[in-house]
Amino acid sequence: MTKKNQEGITAKKNENFSEWFTQIIQKCELADLRYNVKGFLVFQPWSVLAMEKMYKHFEEVLQKKSHKPYWFPTVIPKSNLQKEASHIKGFTPEVFWVTHGGTKKLEEPLALRPTSETAFYQMFNLWIRSYKDLPFKTYQRAQVFRHETKATRPFLRSREFHWIETHCAHATKEDAMKQVQEDMQTTEEVLHDIFGLPFMFFERPSWDKFAGAHRTFASDVLNPDGKVIQQPSTHIISPSFSKAFNITYKDKNQEEKPCYTTCYGPSISRIFASIIITHGDDKGLKFPWEIAPLQVIIIPIDKKVNKKAETLKKEIEKSYSVEIDYSDKRPGEKFNYWEMKGVPIRIDLGLKDLEKKQITIFRRDLNKKIVIPEKDILKTIEKISKEFTKNLIKEADKIFKGKIKDAKNINEVKKIIKDGAIARCNFCSVEKNGEKCAEEIIKEISAEVRGTRLDENQKPSGKCVICGKKAKEIVYVARSY
Amino acid sequence: MTKKNQEGITAKKNENFSEWFTQIIQKCELADLRYNVKGFLVFQPWSVLAMEKMYKHFEEVLQKKSHKPYWFPTVIPKSNLQKEASHIKGFTPEVFWVTHGGTKKLEEPLALRPTSETAFYQMFNLWIRSYKDLPFKTYQRAQVFRHETKATRPFLRSREFHWIETHCAHATKEDAMKQVQEDMQTTEEVLHDIFGLPFMFFERPSWDKFAGAHRTFASDVLNPDGKVIQQPSTHIISPSFSKAFNITYKDKNQEEKPCYTTCYGPSISRIFASIIITHGDDKGLKFPWEIAPLQVIIIPIDKKVNKKAETLKKEIEKSYSVEIDYSDKRPGEKFNYWEMKGVPIRIDLGLKDLEKKQITIFRRDLNKKIVIPEKDILKTIEKISKEFTKNLIKEADKIFKGKIKDAKNINEVKKIIKDGAIARCNFCSVEKNGEKCAEEIIKEISAEVRGTRLDENQKPSGKCVICGKKAKEIVYVARSY
Repeated sequence: MTKKNQEGITAKKNENFSEWFTQIIQKCELADLRYNVKGFLVFQPWSVLAMEKMYKHFEEVLQKKSHKPYWFPTVIPKSNLQKEASHIKGFTPEVFWVTHGGTKKLEEPLALRPTSETAFYQMFNLWIRSYKDLPFKTYQRAQVFRHETKATRPFLRSREFHWIETHCAHATKEDAMKQVQEDMQTTEEVLHDIFGLPFMFFERPSWDKFAGAHRTFASDVLNPDGKVIQQPSTHIISPSFSKAFNITYKDKNQEEKPCYTTCYGPSISRIFASIIITHGDDKGLKFPWEIAPLQVIIIPIDKKVNKKAETLKKEIEKSYSVEIDYSDKRPGEKFNYWEMKGVPIRIDLGLKDLEKKQITIFRRDLNKKIVIPEKDILKTIEKISKEFTKNLIKEADKIFKGKIKDAKNINEVKKIIKDGAIARCNFCSVEKNGEKCAEEIIKEISAEVRGTRLDENQKPSGKCVICGKKAKEIVYVARSY
Repeated sequence: MTKKNQEGITAKKNENFSEWFTQIIQKCELADLRYNVKGFLVFQPWSVLAMEKMYKHFEEVLQKKSHKPYWFPTVIPKSNLQKEASHIKGFTPEVFWVTHGGTKKLEEPLALRPTSETAFYQMFNLWIRSYKDLPFKTYQRAQVFRHETKATRPFLRSREFHWIETHCAHATKEDAMKQVQEDMQTTEEVLHDIFGLPFMFFERPSWDKFAGAHRTFASDVLNPDGKVIQQPSTHIISPSFSKAFNITYKDKNQEEKPCYTTCYGPSISRIFASIIITHGDDKGLKFPWEIAPLQVIIIPIDKKVNKKAETLKKEIEKSYSVEIDYSDKRPGEKFNYWEMKGVPIRIDLGLKDLEKKQITIFRRDLNKKIVIPEKDILKTIEKISKEFTKNLIKEADKIFKGKIKDAKNINEVKKIIKDGAIARCNFCSVEKNGEKCAEEIIKEISAEVRGTRLDENQKPSGKCVICGKKAKEIVYVARSY
């Protein structure tokens, strides 16, 4: 631990979000930005331990839903990428190219995968034969590489990031749409219920689709600065794509039919950013229970309690991760340090408490100290473990819900956006002919039409807030990263 | 499941090892070799599930020994690689180079990491300040890339492989040597005790060190064809290497001292190959209990037992991974299929058994059927789970021990090697001046001096089997991949 970490977070999250985020990354030792390749960073133990748990939760849910794990090569031949026109067009400016092996030029340049449709699809072509093979549901845990032209930002937009990509093939368009629904449900189960992140799923306007997608659905999480961050997206891939790779199956009548493909891409390192941002406060990190790199920290306030600390540790570590802080810092410094690091439960072990056969516990969910009988320690930790993430969710949901506001005209949209919220309004169209109005919003308010909701109950009953034509859609407008 | 898999393994492991290995990979669906980049392969679910468990076991042991996890960038700038002369010399012919981002040439070529000393060391330079920071013990789970000039072979030698690399910095040479001992112990705990692999650790001769190492220690596992496969190696890195990156610390007297660095590199995909090879038999795979992709398979022999199968599954899945095979194959086909796939326990659920309130279990460790009272099912699975890997280890250890034989002269070495074993013999020197004799062995017998053992009890008391000079060492000679 160096000096700078002992200092604690000095920026306020709601006043200077950007500086707060920078300090969190540096002082909590989540990532080191001094690696000497632009846009690449070194993830440090405190974030890696959490992100490994995030992978575990995601993979468990995917496997339960019959996705099978694969490890594909990191490199994809140029000719694969070129097979589908809109895909290569979308990704060309962003591809890192491997051109040499040793001192020799390769016969064909290899892309560091920016996404892996063109790797999976050539194998789907070999693997899928019959309707009995469908749905064919895969996933891989992998890094992807994008030579971003936009400014990079640690965890949020890096040139290498850690994600999961699922790729599926289906017999019908309807099955593909069912997969999209399942992916949205998976996002709810993992992002919301385990990681505590509120979000909204939108169908993106036609001009904002994934390169190669027929339809794109993406989740947006809200930042305290009022900007949204795109989190997992799921796509119905355009039929021309599976046609380019000749992914077909024989139906029950032995007739050759084209497959409909879908993909889903939760970025673990990016979701980690949203977790930091959503739950963190002016003291530092707050980890949801299930992904905390460390769940319990014991601070012996007096050397005489060290033996007791060890006994406690042995008891607790049967069920939870736990450590003792024996460093030579003062107790107050230790308290601040572990609050900053976001450890859910801190046990302050003092001599006086022990004499009274009681223990003081600090809960990071409520930022509250409680004193309990010594014998209740395990019971209490178990109780807190069950409440912890729920408390984080409750808090986050409350803030999120208050940030979605209806706007009747462009001035109201403007005001809502300026106040750091998301505007819901009437809009002419999310097809090609609506793009002009969307561009107007970008120009006027630096905000974007994020899309429509599949579960929107209301029908639009007025005019587009921009052009005044009859509104066909209710859309959501927000600033984004 | 395609036709080819229903056929079963037709090659005999001890008669035609190479064909047996090829069939295992294809028919058990471990990897698909048809990906269109030479030397790269697609790992399929059956191997990925096992290898993920292998990662888990390795990482648990490393973390218990205070190694902290990192995720470093996949790319390393050329200038980093060039900082240490012998390192770049050793790896230059094998590096894949990224030269372009989008359509633009990068300012500096980036290597796909062939190994990550030159990435970690530049950060060690920033992170390590004081003797209090030492030992500094890290690891990462990652893929590495080597443009192999030798022929590639699935799992054993690919151009991209999945491994763990640990990198550590120490205050003294003695601490570095202690780390090497710990790494060898880790290999024993994981490779032998969990994966069931017998091996020997050698200090490699000076001419066979890792590029940049002062001393190299590596484990060798024996194949049934008599060739050894190098498995995890651990290295004391040459002082010039840490000097090139200026990795120093201040000792208790505030004096600046150089760090001694070590690294350890278990390749998960390569170790997986040794697991297949060591435990597999003419029927197919045999997975050690802890890494089996599936631990229990239930075969309902009659539709009338389906409900019972579901009840059993629900009971068993509380503690173990279990599936029911409802496919439309005949029971006999199913039996063969799951034996080939190496599932430890198969439950054959028949109507007659159920009437007698008994269950038939097939154990893949002993290739034996047992009949047990229905009520004992969980107790029996638990018992088998504890014996399973032990039985595999016993069998493997027995074979391994019989394969190490003493040779008094070159003819005996030749005979031992020809018989598919490892020869132990007197040798002049493992320093530079012994290399000529080692080359003679390569030329004469196509075998290699694998090195000396740290725990060798005997002193050499004769002459080098090649040059006849006084022997300074007892070495082991074997053919290798």
